[in-house]
Amino acid sequence: MTTCQRKIEVCFTPAIYNEFRNDEAIVIIVDILRATSAIITAFMHGAKKIIPVATLEEAKEYKDKGYIVAAERDGIKRDFADFGNSPFNFQQDFIRDKEIVYSTTNGTQCIMLAHDSYRVLIGGYLNIDALVNYITKKHRDVLILCAAWKNKFNLEDTLFAGALTEKLLHTGDYYTICDSAHASVDLWNMARPNIMQYIEKAAQRHRLRKNNLDDVIEYCHTMNLTDIIPSLKKNYLVKLSELDNK
Amino acid sequence: MTTCQRKIEVCFTPAIYNEFRNDEAIVIIVDILRATSAIITAFMHGAKKIIPVATLEEAKEYKDKGYIVAAERDGIKRDFADFGNSPFNFQQDFIRDKEIVYSTTNGTQCIMLAHDSYRVLIGGYLNIDALVNYITKKHRDVLILCAAWKNKFNLEDTLFAGALTEKLLHTGDYYTICDSAHASVDLWNMARPNIMQYIEKAAQRHRLRKNNLDDVIEYCHTMNLTDIIPSLKKNYLVKLSELDNK
Repeated sequence: MTTCQRKIEVCFTPAIYNEFRNDEAIVIIVDILRATSAIITAFMHGAKKIIPVATLEEAKEYKDKGYIVAAERDGIKRDFADFGNSPFNFQQDFIRDKEIVYSTTNGTQCIMLAHDSYRVLIGGYLNIDALVNYITKKHRDVLILCAAWKNKFNLEDTLFAGALTEKLLHTGDYYTICDSAHASVDLWNMARPNIMQYIEKAAQRHRLRKNNLDDVIEYCHTMNLTDIIPSLKKNYLVKLSELDNK
Repeated sequence: MTTCQRKIEVCFTPAIYNEFRNDEAIVIIVDILRATSAIITAFMHGAKKIIPVATLEEAKEYKDKGYIVAAERDGIKRDFADFGNSPFNFQQDFIRDKEIVYSTTNGTQCIMLAHDSYRVLIGGYLNIDALVNYITKKHRDVLILCAAWKNKFNLEDTLFAGALTEKLLHTGDYYTICDSAHASVDLWNMARPNIMQYIEKAAQRHRLRKNNLDDVIEYCHTMNLTDIIPSLKKNYLVKLSELDNK
């Protein structure tokens, strides 16, 4: 029996993670455009394990060892890589049961920052209700950690933080006194009537368009395509169901 | 004649100042509850110079040298100080032509961080239109630096960043592609119909209430009580008019 509400906090950038660090909490990593959306998609299509790496050097080392590697910089697939970082690249049969290396600057840093937490989960619109179900079952504090863009606040991760916070508050089991969480919920409620229109002002939306990578934006904002929650185990990601059957 | 628009950026916390650093810019320091509102108020009542210090030790050293010192922690005036940090403490005749030391953790850090910029200005609702007038006259990039709360995003500084950004955009001389600036403007427009009600959810509002220091909140959100803009000169603040007659 649980008798008290648990708190929700939102951290807008990994640069201030230490101000929020709470090792008893469930930490949700958010990098909507595109890392966490891509990682969820890979597991939806049968990936066995994903190894997030921060540098291209690490990605190349894994490639040399025979791993499937997703790696791009500035929108261009690197020569040594099998494909780039778009979620659409993971919607293919040949990734089933494979171990895949995913090179991402902002997302990887966040995932590893939080590795001492009770759980590190990969979140996105694609699995939002699965997150809510798992979190409320565990009844623990929640920290939503936005990957941001090179340590700067970004709109797309913030909107998702707001969507998730609002769903958790709605259960009645959670509260927040975190200004970032309040701001996220307010921005989400402003954006939700037309999320595609709102996201037009996000800097990342313009970066992706410039590189002809913006075909994924609507997909990355689609709710509940899966119940799968990727979760950190040591230094790689597996399905939460393999890690936590409680 | 100016021929191009200048950019506006908003930095939500001094922890990521280096990601935004732009030494050619005019930097506006914002700590609405209460440091920048108090500093503006002190100059409105004739203060000659304000020396912001970060630690109580520094404040005490200045007190021993004969300065007037404002210093409190957790809402309690320190024994050695002349008064606490409320803007209302500076509405007194005896501060006229005096040099005053103001001890504040979040605000001082921000002011000194930006000291290499073209100008470091102290901003608040109290002098918002004066800021707009000066900035548009200079036609330089603008960085609005929120003091935040122990490096965490806060609502009250963000709302002001939104108010100032919106006024600057309205002149037609400025643009922004900064996600933090967009978020600030949207939150400001949500809050402005009833700013006192919106600010109820700010964590700082509750801290001040708990310490019976919340009598200043409405005052700190009052627009255009003065044309004075405090500005950094070396390690202290003077009226901008003494520094910049161009």
